[in-house]
Amino acid sequence: MSSLQPMSEQELTDVVIERFASTPDDRLREVMQALVRHVHAFAREVRLTDDEWLTGIQFLTAAGHITDGNRQEFILLSDTLGLSSMVDLINHASMVEGVTEPTILGPFYVPNSPEREFGASMIEYADGGEESLVEGCVTSPDGTPIAGAVIDVWQNAATGFYAVQQPDVQPATNLRGIYRTDVQGRYSIHTVRPTPYPIPDDGPVGKMLSATGRHQMRAAHIHVKVSAPGFAPVTTHVFDEASDYLDSDTVFGVKGSLISAFTPGDDGLLHCAVDFTLEPTH
Amino acid sequence: MSSLQPMSEQELTDVVIERFASTPDDRLREVMQALVRHVHAFAREVRLTDDEWLTGIQFLTAAGHITDGNRQEFILLSDTLGLSSMVDLINHASMVEGVTEPTILGPFYVPNSPEREFGASMIEYADGGEESLVEGCVTSPDGTPIAGAVIDVWQNAATGFYAVQQPDVQPATNLRGIYRTDVQGRYSIHTVRPTPYPIPDDGPVGKMLSATGRHQMRAAHIHVKVSAPGFAPVTTHVFDEASDYLDSDTVFGVKGSLISAFTPGDDGLLHCAVDFTLEPTH
Repeated sequence: MSSLQPMSEQELTDVVIERFASTPDDRLREVMQALVRHVHAFAREVRLTDDEWLTGIQFLTAAGHITDGNRQEFILLSDTLGLSSMVDLINHASMVEGVTEPTILGPFYVPNSPEREFGASMIEYADGGEESLVEGCVTSPDGTPIAGAVIDVWQNAATGFYAVQQPDVQPATNLRGIYRTDVQGRYSIHTVRPTPYPIPDDGPVGKMLSATGRHQMRAAHIHVKVSAPGFAPVTTHVFDEASDYLDSDTVFGVKGSLISAFTPGDDGLLHCAVDFTLEPTH
Repeated sequence: MSSLQPMSEQELTDVVIERFASTPDDRLREVMQALVRHVHAFAREVRLTDDEWLTGIQFLTAAGHITDGNRQEFILLSDTLGLSSMVDLINHASMVEGVTEPTILGPFYVPNSPEREFGASMIEYADGGEESLVEGCVTSPDGTPIAGAVIDVWQNAATGFYAVQQPDVQPATNLRGIYRTDVQGRYSIHTVRPTPYPIPDDGPVGKMLSATGRHQMRAAHIHVKVSAPGFAPVTTHVFDEASDYLDSDTVFGVKGSLISAFTPGDDGLLHCAVDFTLEPTH
């Protein structure tokens, strides 16, 4: 470092990587050294200017300042750059045939939703949405029903917002709930049809999407986490087959196997049949 | 996206890059597409786990929340990963022979320091530091003195802190000032000898350094921005030749050509001779 000769770019990268060589934890060392190598490679490839570097610092600062207990701009950034879906693919791609595919968690999950009875409604606020029954079975890959499986559900109202985004408008537990399967592995959720909605666009991620000519819309979906003792839990979505944006979901969350139809029934409700298949952990 | 076949990792990367294809600004498109490619390549190479991804989100969130008008954790992160020095190298390496080399700005620059006379002291607080005169000339590469050049100086006190870090202890303008060269291109700054100091270690960057077995110390230095009409300004440091950490400065800011000696003079002060050479812009 104290040579009078100016350092080359490769020498600088090597010096920084070497500086992490004493990291006690092998995995942390591997991750940090790779992070440095890729961050440096990005800057070198695009010949990042001083002003662009400062724009990046200001972007991260703005993301930090808009993030609070109910708003997570860094997850939104990860989602819109496809990183969240990549992490999902890396960790959950090697699945048993027929097991329900996962997709991203998103920034709106709230733990400890109320327990709701089989078939009970989680509509606590009249928003004009089309009332629907989402029903089906939770099974193991060989078709055996799983009784007592937990289905933790959350979705947006027809207005486009999740309850957590509108604390002064929607009841805090509107359109979220914890359901359990019956002895035959069946579940039944009374809700509204989900609608496409824009991700929060009043922060730096919204500005990034605008500046890059991208829309802010997610395809209509219901979030579910399905779990049962002895099985690997899955965090996934139920997408509406009739939704716009299935081919351009702004957070890259759509998988073909997760798309289902909402069809009118004789009871005046829409019906959506979705089975979930969990992978045994043993 | 709506194929029933699971997507491969490369297909996901390609889809995300393609999503930026409509970016109106050519340079923004180039930067964003390269960013996606490198971020995805990092995650794929290290097989980033769900928990590691969440740790990264929490790291950025903590960095955002500790950042305010006087504390910039994202710049500290960029500095400690060597990105700031890389951006410096990328943008300022192709210099005329003999021109003063730049180095990083750091997070403690405060604009609008007080104007100080030739040889005036910028010591406004008795901290026990060794009093010193930093003196020399500002010239063009052919040796012509530059009169009226501006030298914007800031440094830490012997306690290790910059005035901006200790608003209740040090006067706000302690150890910073704006000096100008005289008609012979000379400047003279009365200050204290700088000392090595730890970068702020109470935030996520401090935790990262601890976890990776790195120290938090910077080699002793004085910051200067030197500018004059008709010349490219330079942001650089004066490093103390006797300092520890010249070979392991935690933000990778040391360049051999920026190291100078502080030597005792007959007047009871230390003397440090440093000339600055600016590159003409025409």
